[in-house]
Amino acid sequence: MTLDNVHDKDSLKNKIRNIGEYARNAAFGLASTTVQDRRRALNEMSLQICDHTKQIKNANDKDIELAHSSGLNDALLDRLKLDEERILAIARGLIEISKLDDPLGRVLESRERPNGLNIQRVSVPIGVIAVIYESRPNVTADAGGLCLMSGNVAILRGGSESFYSSEAIVSFMHAGLREAGLSESAIQLVPMRDRAAVGELLKLEEFIDMVVPRGGKSLIERVREDSRIPVLAHLEGICHTYIHAQADLSMAKEILLNAKMRRTGICGATETLLVDTDIAQELPVLIKPLVEAGCELRGDTAARVIDSSLIQATESDWKTEYLDAVLSIRVVNNLEHAIEHINRYGSHHTDSIVTNNELAAEKFMNEVDSGIVMHNTSTQFADGAEFGMGAEIGIATGKLHARGPVGIEQLTTYKYKVQGQGQVRP
Amino acid sequence: MTLDNVHDKDSLKNKIRNIGEYARNAAFGLASTTVQDRRRALNEMSLQICDHTKQIKNANDKDIELAHSSGLNDALLDRLKLDEERILAIARGLIEISKLDDPLGRVLESRERPNGLNIQRVSVPIGVIAVIYESRPNVTADAGGLCLMSGNVAILRGGSESFYSSEAIVSFMHAGLREAGLSESAIQLVPMRDRAAVGELLKLEEFIDMVVPRGGKSLIERVREDSRIPVLAHLEGICHTYIHAQADLSMAKEILLNAKMRRTGICGATETLLVDTDIAQELPVLIKPLVEAGCELRGDTAARVIDSSLIQATESDWKTEYLDAVLSIRVVNNLEHAIEHINRYGSHHTDSIVTNNELAAEKFMNEVDSGIVMHNTSTQFADGAEFGMGAEIGIATGKLHARGPVGIEQLTTYKYKVQGQGQVRP
Repeated sequence: MTLDNVHDKDSLKNKIRNIGEYARNAAFGLASTTVQDRRRALNEMSLQICDHTKQIKNANDKDIELAHSSGLNDALLDRLKLDEERILAIARGLIEISKLDDPLGRVLESRERPNGLNIQRVSVPIGVIAVIYESRPNVTADAGGLCLMSGNVAILRGGSESFYSSEAIVSFMHAGLREAGLSESAIQLVPMRDRAAVGELLKLEEFIDMVVPRGGKSLIERVREDSRIPVLAHLEGICHTYIHAQADLSMAKEILLNAKMRRTGICGATETLLVDTDIAQELPVLIKPLVEAGCELRGDTAARVIDSSLIQATESDWKTEYLDAVLSIRVVNNLEHAIEHINRYGSHHTDSIVTNNELAAEKFMNEVDSGIVMHNTSTQFADGAEFGMGAEIGIATGKLHARGPVGIEQLTTYKYKVQGQGQVRP
Repeated sequence: MTLDNVHDKDSLKNKIRNIGEYARNAAFGLASTTVQDRRRALNEMSLQICDHTKQIKNANDKDIELAHSSGLNDALLDRLKLDEERILAIARGLIEISKLDDPLGRVLESRERPNGLNIQRVSVPIGVIAVIYESRPNVTADAGGLCLMSGNVAILRGGSESFYSSEAIVSFMHAGLREAGLSESAIQLVPMRDRAAVGELLKLEEFIDMVVPRGGKSLIERVREDSRIPVLAHLEGICHTYIHAQADLSMAKEILLNAKMRRTGICGATETLLVDTDIAQELPVLIKPLVEAGCELRGDTAARVIDSSLIQATESDWKTEYLDAVLSIRVVNNLEHAIEHINRYGSHHTDSIVTNNELAAEKFMNEVDSGIVMHNTSTQFADGAEFGMGAEIGIATGKLHARGPVGIEQLTTYKYKVQGQGQVRP
């Protein structure tokens, strides 16, 4: 290692540490803001973004040009691209966030003790949240806005492909914060493209309370591996739709088509169909709309006995999130077998049963160990907005703190406030 | 490394892995038990322990003998020792746990969406909880009982000094589980004294959902350092009592004495007194009862100007959990200074302000970043039972999942149950 490298490394470390320190200091102030303050800041940010679509577009052009020359594929280029309409949608998103109920200061529980102590459990911000994400520049505004509305300081680390776009968006968010009289440190973008910056961020236990990674499996695995700070994430969405023996076939057909094909690239898309052996003869009817929609179908041996046009599925199919027009199919012996398969191969995200048997549905929903369990509906509904929670920062598949959609309420914690009149403990 | 070592290591690893697998399997069954099942098991366990005090006492004698010969000090020997009274208290503890409200199946939220979907957020067990603790054998029953009542499988790893006592207690808990028709795997004791067992446990992400360490700072630091599994813990309790300028002096005096001296070895004991400069002249009056009770007092320079008999405090005193009859004293300029001191040096556990000024109290309780904040009462009240939550497994000082006392409600998580009638997402 040359002397230069050493200096670079130290300087990166110091810069990241400074961001953390500023964030921690800003967190104390932000926790004491009123919901009016936070709403006003979100509205001002939105106005600033609307007033500067041209500047944001220019910054995005720079990202697109660099991405072109580095050979990014068309799908990723499309995700990266901002036009006037998309920029206005970003601004509208901030307004929507500002309309949500204040998640802070809710009295979650209140007890009067026999000795006269009054004990309240009250919702408060978590503090400082680092959001690490990939190419979509709109996440910059969404994540920053959700953190602000919940009284948390955001440290944002976007993909290097969207660096200039994110920088422009954050600069107008800062202008909005200033207009509302809040500290600019409430939303900070890690100002370097260096990949090592993420590693340094993940060491700042002292300043950062939670890390939210958003992106592909490799990003999330890396963050979980390296972080000394608690991580709220979903690794992947291996969602199942189970057609029970007593399912309404036409309902099952519609739900299955929607669950797989409405959008194949989202985490709530079904990846595996489980069909009960008692209804397996209906498989050709069930999958006809999928075939017509161009979905690739991979079945286990029992499924291929019924429909030999299926590609042979292997063990690894049960563990794969395709995020594409591909579906694996397994014939299961009964309800217990379906539950066992899901708990073994699934990712604890979202799983649905289609049946007219209420007891079977209840057993399925109790015993499938996932954040979201469904009966007679499509796994594609796994989404904070569809749940009536407003925008979400992601879907958690861990078990602690939050499970399922993570909206502003899930970005809070609580403290106990104990009010006495001089009581001492006997 | 000899071939023998390799085999030992592999065999330890396999044994621990087996415990994890049994635990995970038992968790699915336990999640479906009724509260009657779980209460019955707790009652049967309690009976079994009452019926076998002699056997437990004999096992404890073995531990005591070994501890003697290895030179354990008297305080630790006392914590380790079980007599008939203590064994009956353990049995009573299980009955108390069985009387708590069922923490499972609570509908935490229910929404009817415009499209007719019904979305319920329902409390469920976390799954498998590993509790790692030091010498007190009663923790074996407490922790096992709290996990069972909340539908969680417990993997218990006690201190090696209490090995035989814990083994005896667990054997009678198993008898109780059998009587109630539940799987013995619901409560498992790691059956070896080898320290490496903890390291192996902490790698079992696949089978264990949460780790709760209970004990000294070094144990908890080690668990946090080594664990791949989320840890719920408090590292230490550096609690503060702040006497504001507008405090009622006689109330302050009583609260301070209780907060420091009622029991000095618990995590809710006050370690640092902050006195407002405007009331600092009253310091001799405030600390007189402490001096009489034999407390060692260490003051900063300003405090020593007022009372030169104080030992000089240094920076390191502000960071120290004495767990003893020692108090550090600092004169602070004002409310803001007190809050800043606490947020900088405290451990986010429990902090109290004594004042008649409601606004000052409100500001203190809002801005002190601790799990428990108090007004006009003693930090020694930081305890699940005192909060009306029943027995606690510990007090959490992290921010995610649970803060403050961790009772059976905090040993649950939730899932979303979505009920449809064939809805698909547009």
